[in-house]
Amino acid sequence: MKFSCSRNDLLNALTIVSKGVSTRSTMDVLQGILFTVYDNKLRLTATDLEIGVKTEIPAQTQNDGEIILNAALITDVIRKLSGEEVYFESDEKNRVKIESLLSEFVLNGLPVQDFPDFPKISEEYSFEISPVLLREMIRSTKDSVALSESIPVHTGIKLEVDQKNIRMISLDGYRLALRRGELEKGVDDDFSVIIPGNALKELFKLLAGIEEPVKVEFSKSQIFFKLGETVFTSRLLEGEFVSYEGIIPKQSTTDVVISKQSLLQSCERAALLAKAGKNNLIKMDFEPDQLTITSNADVGGVHEVIKIENSGETLKIAFNSKFFIDALKVIDDDKIRIGLTTPYGPAVVVPVEGSSYTYMILPVRVSE
Amino acid sequence: MKFSCSRNDLLNALTIVSKGVSTRSTMDVLQGILFTVYDNKLRLTATDLEIGVKTEIPAQTQNDGEIILNAALITDVIRKLSGEEVYFESDEKNRVKIESLLSEFVLNGLPVQDFPDFPKISEEYSFEISPVLLREMIRSTKDSVALSESIPVHTGIKLEVDQKNIRMISLDGYRLALRRGELEKGVDDDFSVIIPGNALKELFKLLAGIEEPVKVEFSKSQIFFKLGETVFTSRLLEGEFVSYEGIIPKQSTTDVVISKQSLLQSCERAALLAKAGKNNLIKMDFEPDQLTITSNADVGGVHEVIKIENSGETLKIAFNSKFFIDALKVIDDDKIRIGLTTPYGPAVVVPVEGSSYTYMILPVRVSE
Repeated sequence: MKFSCSRNDLLNALTIVSKGVSTRSTMDVLQGILFTVYDNKLRLTATDLEIGVKTEIPAQTQNDGEIILNAALITDVIRKLSGEEVYFESDEKNRVKIESLLSEFVLNGLPVQDFPDFPKISEEYSFEISPVLLREMIRSTKDSVALSESIPVHTGIKLEVDQKNIRMISLDGYRLALRRGELEKGVDDDFSVIIPGNALKELFKLLAGIEEPVKVEFSKSQIFFKLGETVFTSRLLEGEFVSYEGIIPKQSTTDVVISKQSLLQSCERAALLAKAGKNNLIKMDFEPDQLTITSNADVGGVHEVIKIENSGETLKIAFNSKFFIDALKVIDDDKIRIGLTTPYGPAVVVPVEGSSYTYMILPVRVSE
Repeated sequence: MKFSCSRNDLLNALTIVSKGVSTRSTMDVLQGILFTVYDNKLRLTATDLEIGVKTEIPAQTQNDGEIILNAALITDVIRKLSGEEVYFESDEKNRVKIESLLSEFVLNGLPVQDFPDFPKISEEYSFEISPVLLREMIRSTKDSVALSESIPVHTGIKLEVDQKNIRMISLDGYRLALRRGELEKGVDDDFSVIIPGNALKELFKLLAGIEEPVKVEFSKSQIFFKLGETVFTSRLLEGEFVSYEGIIPKQSTTDVVISKQSLLQSCERAALLAKAGKNNLIKMDFEPDQLTITSNADVGGVHEVIKIENSGETLKIAFNSKFFIDALKVIDDDKIRIGLTTPYGPAVVVPVEGSSYTYMILPVRVSE
């Protein structure tokens, strides 16, 4: 293997594929990045067996070849080099000489035969989505993914597409996030898949700054996202995802329009004391024209008053402050609508106009 | 106690005095900030018994009084408030009501009688120094302060003043930093004191953005720095600080002029592998016109070549990469001079012109 490439191109590519490098595995190859040189191109590949990332950059190749280099070390080395061009040459003992200006590194690589195969793109189904919409949909749902493995399928985000309508749903037993969007080109066959939440959190980072449409291809067990020269893949989760239509209340008896920013700031202030208590609890008292938020702990108490447009019955209800804050933080609207029923029924947060999102937050039962 | 003040002023003041709050003490009062209201002023005071900080802001006072509030909690509360003005009122049970716009907090304060007295300014000696020079002198010497308590006095930085000449010196057994400056107004009586390194690291942060001259007052056991409305104090260390004149070599047999930036970057690259090895070792090979830096570890090796202006003998010598990098990072000059004698003698780094700093770094003995 002998080639040269731009240091900047290589550093960008390393940053991209590092998203696929295992942070937990003790297997050396999974902490490495596979360098494949062919046909005036350098392809970088990484995988942690659940997700995989590969990308390509132009290279001036003299000899094709492959090698695995430790991801953290090669990224640090390339970041610190001062030349614009980097020269690579490997020998038969898997040693790689890396030269740039007056620096010369020799790194010990690993033989490539132990590197897992990158899943093949089968293209059973496919569609295109704008990177901005895809990123926004992940942003809206990633906080509500279950962290516990008790229902493994709920560690994923469900992606549903029918014709032009696309939805992402996540829930963790305390809250549910549902985000709706519209594709430019609809699909012929409706489908739904469940993508691991951790995979979409990494994809979320890769989507920043991407401008071309993302091509999504998938089979029953594997999904691929094509972002320009980069391919991101994840295995899919199998199992029965809860039917969200059945659990989101359709009716409310207390219906409130409120400034999102005021509510978020009040919740954040109340959370300062809620966190000092152990249950992270804030109490909401919905009255005509005003919402009072209180929280109490050994160190003190807080009392917040926010103006609301109220229709319906007065209600006292309590929530875990974190779940309300997580939902409000990813909403961009100025005003939101909150629907409630009883102190034991969930809060449903929706936009005042349209239906691009629905957040549902379960209350905490407290004895007065 | 009843008063109001600007939220911004208060947040700035809390950020300043928080530098004096103990991070390790389990005593509640030492995790608190003393609020003292008097004469249309609010004074905030914090101390961890080694250092202390107090500052004042304007306030509209209705009733004078004192209270201790937990530093982290009150800072979080004030940071999150949305009003421009904050209203405080305490009751006889040490509860403090804090109001701003539609928010009302009630925090449980602590009685003030357990709060340590702030040391009195005795003004046995004093001088003035520009905040920029003082900050620069601390920046140059703070990394070389001994972390081990084995020689307690070396956990401090020695401050020497004779007439207009001011010097700060620190050393940790592996390296020495000496920074020289000049005062605008000289002192009548020469003096030297030893200030705890941790105290100067906190003072360093407070000096950012300060423009007026800093007034320094001290006695045998205590030093005070007056930064506008803020007073920073520290106890002084007692003991025999090593005589640095005796240990910095006056002569060198290898004398090199080199680009600081090239040397720093090469050391940082070499350190990538030096860190992978266990001793953090880089080897320097001084030859006519060029310096070669190498480092080796299980994962690979690195070889760097830098042009130098050399006078004197060739020399092979090894250093801990961190000590060289720490010294080079705080030097602003483009070119520096390095003086060396034998593989066992220290490297002495000085400016090409002037004498504002001297860094001395002990080599590591290695068997070839």
